[in-house]
Amino acid sequence: MPRVTFIPSNAQIDVAPDENLLRAAMRAGVHINASCGGAGVCNKCKIFVEEGEVHGERLPDGGYKACTTVALSDLLIRVPVESEMDRKALVRAEGVKAASWIQAQAEMLERPLDPVIKKTTVTLPEPTLEDSVSDLERLQRELGQGKLQGVTLEVDNQILRNLPEALRSERWLTTVSIMEGKHPDTKRLIQVQPGNTTRFHLAGAIDIGTTTVSVQLLDLASGEILAESSDYNPQVSYGEDVISRMEFARKGDGLKILQEKIVECLDRLIDEVCSESNTEKGDLSLLSVAANTVMTHFLLGLDPRYLRAAPYVPVATQFPPVRASEIGFNVPDHVRIFLAPCVASYVGGDIVAGVVGSGLNRQPELTLFIDIGTNGEIVLGNQDWMACAACSAGPAFEGGGIEHGMRATTGAVEVVHIHPATFEPMVLTIGGKKAKGICGSGIISLLAGLFTAGVIDQQGKFRHDLDTPRVREGRSGWEYVVVEAEATQTGKDIVFTEADIENLIRAKGAMFAGYLTLLESVGMSIEDLERVVLAGNFGSYLDLEQAVTIGLLPDIPRDRFFFAGNTSLMGARAAALSWPVINEEGEVAKMMTHFDLSNNPSFMDHYVSCLFLPHTDTSLFPSVKVK
Amino acid sequence: MPRVTFIPSNAQIDVAPDENLLRAAMRAGVHINASCGGAGVCNKCKIFVEEGEVHGERLPDGGYKACTTVALSDLLIRVPVESEMDRKALVRAEGVKAASWIQAQAEMLERPLDPVIKKTTVTLPEPTLEDSVSDLERLQRELGQGKLQGVTLEVDNQILRNLPEALRSERWLTTVSIMEGKHPDTKRLIQVQPGNTTRFHLAGAIDIGTTTVSVQLLDLASGEILAESSDYNPQVSYGEDVISRMEFARKGDGLKILQEKIVECLDRLIDEVCSESNTEKGDLSLLSVAANTVMTHFLLGLDPRYLRAAPYVPVATQFPPVRASEIGFNVPDHVRIFLAPCVASYVGGDIVAGVVGSGLNRQPELTLFIDIGTNGEIVLGNQDWMACAACSAGPAFEGGGIEHGMRATTGAVEVVHIHPATFEPMVLTIGGKKAKGICGSGIISLLAGLFTAGVIDQQGKFRHDLDTPRVREGRSGWEYVVVEAEATQTGKDIVFTEADIENLIRAKGAMFAGYLTLLESVGMSIEDLERVVLAGNFGSYLDLEQAVTIGLLPDIPRDRFFFAGNTSLMGARAAALSWPVINEEGEVAKMMTHFDLSNNPSFMDHYVSCLFLPHTDTSLFPSVKVK
Repeated sequence: MPRVTFIPSNAQIDVAPDENLLRAAMRAGVHINASCGGAGVCNKCKIFVEEGEVHGERLPDGGYKACTTVALSDLLIRVPVESEMDRKALVRAEGVKAASWIQAQAEMLERPLDPVIKKTTVTLPEPTLEDSVSDLERLQRELGQGKLQGVTLEVDNQILRNLPEALRSERWLTTVSIMEGKHPDTKRLIQVQPGNTTRFHLAGAIDIGTTTVSVQLLDLASGEILAESSDYNPQVSYGEDVISRMEFARKGDGLKILQEKIVECLDRLIDEVCSESNTEKGDLSLLSVAANTVMTHFLLGLDPRYLRAAPYVPVATQFPPVRASEIGFNVPDHVRIFLAPCVASYVGGDIVAGVVGSGLNRQPELTLFIDIGTNGEIVLGNQDWMACAACSAGPAFEGGGIEHGMRATTGAVEVVHIHPATFEPMVLTIGGKKAKGICGSGIISLLAGLFTAGVIDQQGKFRHDLDTPRVREGRSGWEYVVVEAEATQTGKDIVFTEADIENLIRAKGAMFAGYLTLLESVGMSIEDLERVVLAGNFGSYLDLEQAVTIGLLPDIPRDRFFFAGNTSLMGARAAALSWPVINEEGEVAKMMTHFDLSNNPSFMDHYVSCLFLPHTDTSLFPSVKVK
Repeated sequence: MPRVTFIPSNAQIDVAPDENLLRAAMRAGVHINASCGGAGVCNKCKIFVEEGEVHGERLPDGGYKACTTVALSDLLIRVPVESEMDRKALVRAEGVKAASWIQAQAEMLERPLDPVIKKTTVTLPEPTLEDSVSDLERLQRELGQGKLQGVTLEVDNQILRNLPEALRSERWLTTVSIMEGKHPDTKRLIQVQPGNTTRFHLAGAIDIGTTTVSVQLLDLASGEILAESSDYNPQVSYGEDVISRMEFARKGDGLKILQEKIVECLDRLIDEVCSESNTEKGDLSLLSVAANTVMTHFLLGLDPRYLRAAPYVPVATQFPPVRASEIGFNVPDHVRIFLAPCVASYVGGDIVAGVVGSGLNRQPELTLFIDIGTNGEIVLGNQDWMACAACSAGPAFEGGGIEHGMRATTGAVEVVHIHPATFEPMVLTIGGKKAKGICGSGIISLLAGLFTAGVIDQQGKFRHDLDTPRVREGRSGWEYVVVEAEATQTGKDIVFTEADIENLIRAKGAMFAGYLTLLESVGMSIEDLERVVLAGNFGSYLDLEQAVTIGLLPDIPRDRFFFAGNTSLMGARAAALSWPVINEEGEVAKMMTHFDLSNNPSFMDHYVSCLFLPHTDTSLFPSVKVK
């Protein structure tokens, strides 16, 4: 890998053959002005090659556009004087992240493969006139004498229809699928297939988020992931957030529509992963689903009306296994859905699965589990106890309620650095395309960058005395121009407003007040935290330093942070591979003490103190320098 | 009640105000010539009123038509000289029958009411912010602390959809329906209703015969029968007997059609009994079904192909409870079907239910249970052991394969007496209408009458030397004219042919050979029988003496016979009212030793000896006088 040295800062970094020098500079903590996000149109990201070979677009004055230039050898790159390094604010916690991923995966794989539905072969004696008991009795007799001695075996009526053929077509060699019962002495026969099909045994692990849906196809014979797919939750068309969807569900056929849409979507994703991996849907035995409480209610077609108002009562929080075809899935009759249990209306199965998936409940360290999604759910605890809460943080960190906010797709501004002297931005977009809007990580980048550069004060208000055209009074108050019109896809300026900043401060304030409230309730404080687990897709893009800078994450040693990725999907996968995990989730859900923050006076006090960057009490953030 | 004395025989009988004197004469054992079955058209049943008042149709010579005349006071009736008494052959076992009915009913009612699905009320504490567990957990918590302590409670996913309303609409007073599980420590929550609905709890007891279907609606709160209804099995359109229906099932959608037809029919009957009793179908919890093995397969949509050929293997003989809506019933989702277990391909749940319903399995007496339906199934045994067999008797005793055979409906000849000197018949039809054909009891009457009067010999051949136009050579051989054309609905003679008689002798021979084979297999003989239970609707019309005369029933003391009626329906009812009966049926089905007579050499020997009236070995029938 070529090594690139940037001067005057002397920052060094190894680059991949296809990594452009703008992205390399961002990684190395070198600021280069760049407005268009790497699309090659703003011509601002000029660099000079002092030593080495490059391939790229040359500018008239002998410089190169950093965003379209790659290294062909070790390089010495000079960044023009107007750009200046501010290393600290740019360092991302990539090392920590990779390590934690590996650890979480390893933990998962250490569990013995032990799915709740198992396949086993059995060879039956052929019937004779002397032994002409029925097909079912013959099968039960053989199982009762062999592998299932002493077990009360319940039988799905549905297996009977193809039983004669299943037994006879491979000369009485047959494979049965047996599901563990709720009572330890009971099991249930749910499928009978001809021949030995034990090698063909599939499960789906499914995460239903409010915004996105992910499906993994698992091989229950090997434990491997065969294929993955994801898509937006089609319910988005009927309401961006859970509240508006619950409103929609109340009217006419609303609930039915929401239920059918999510099933349709999952059916399609299941078809995709089966086709991608050349597997048969008929070999599926189970779907393991993790979802928040509202999504779980929608999937089962349950009335969410009592979730919405005090005392916020779900219809159920521990769900019996459901026959997938019964709720509309286009899968064979025997396929069962196992749903991760929920704790309360706003702390759902995604969190329970996440806690189990990330191992919080099996370790002694005091851990804070944070899922900064639409709502912001947190869990504090360890193997002995757990407290949880929903913070009502709102969707600001997903781009919701932000004037130019958008989801993390191509063209979204994902990282921004503000030059501390010129206040010019260095912008990177997803996919290196012209900018369309700002996604969650870009929003945190911006807020942290503006604050660090002194463009906004501790209350999030713009300074009006700066010598830059980027800070201006717009139609809806003061704003910062992130990308000028000529470099955007929309042809309009992409701006970041004081109203956006207010929303963000409220959101991060709600999260932080949540941490403090849970800690206080058990007589502990921020310093006692031994681990912070960051869950959700959000976690994989989050810049740790920036998140601390704005007071979204606590200012504790950085090696205590773990980026765990989609812990909900990870938990769903763990439950599919190992049925003790299903029981573990049930235990975790029951053991969690839920705090209703909306009626908690201590939370309100903390919240008010948190409406500052990074916090009213700066002693909580020793590493953050306020300019 | 007026008393009627018939002279010259001096037979006396009390008559009901609406009972005509022809029927009274038959009961009293007095022969009066009568061809039209009581329709008033043949003018043969002339009587003279010597003393007393009558209301009836007067003939020109001062006599009355017996079939249209009723008593207004005590009477002395002279029967013209051409009619003569033959009391013995006409005495029906009515006294025995009534007693056994009462006994069977009493046994049923002695069982404590203990249905497999029970309703119980529970009042829940209202949710608060401090206690906001989900609706389901709240319910489970209350049940777990109270009535279901220590029980593993499984939950039907279907209850969740209306759970919030069910709990709230009567202020947290609710009624739950709990089903017993297969494992003794498990139960299942299958329905939740608002308020106290324990008084409204229904079950259906259903007997699916090859020809007729009967439904009783039971009140599970009181044990009472609220309404009853029955109809022909609509599958009859696709095949009169099980063999032709299995043939139909093999082709195209045949099985699906048969399945749908029976469900449609049962749905209609359920609607009828609910409407008749002013009850709500929503209060149904279970359907308890008894049916033969083939009908059970059809109801569940199971492939019957391996039932037909050796080694005659059913798909299943013990059936898990089935959700009725899953197999197409138009009933609420929670309603379960419990199916009486079968023993083998041709000894089904109707027989198992019958054995349990009639108490054979709970008594020490050596009992022969006989169901003379299409097939002829028999069970021999007592509380300690049981042997069973199907005799392949065919449908002759239901009118099948008999030239003028018909089902027991209006216009069917149901009783016949043959005058021993004139060979003129005395015919009664069902409903007193002009004759259309001959039903099962009429067929036995005829065969016994012709044999007793010496019209046929021990091999069932007509004597050709009798001085009567009623015995003649017809198109298909020798025959007896039962009703002449002018007195029939069809305008054609109703005859009884030598071919009919051959069929009947084969049928009764198969039955009797079955008794002997089972008895022999346990080293016993006819005299050891302590009870004979006659099951089926057939049993309620059967003339005991006539049945013994033709060798269909063994010649043992008449007080050992019990007419038990529809024991299959009785067993279905017992199973609905008491779940220990369901387990008892399972035990009985497992404990019965099944003999496959079709491959039994001993059976074949006995069968050949039985092709005589009453039997080759007349010492087996000491009470039957061969003329």
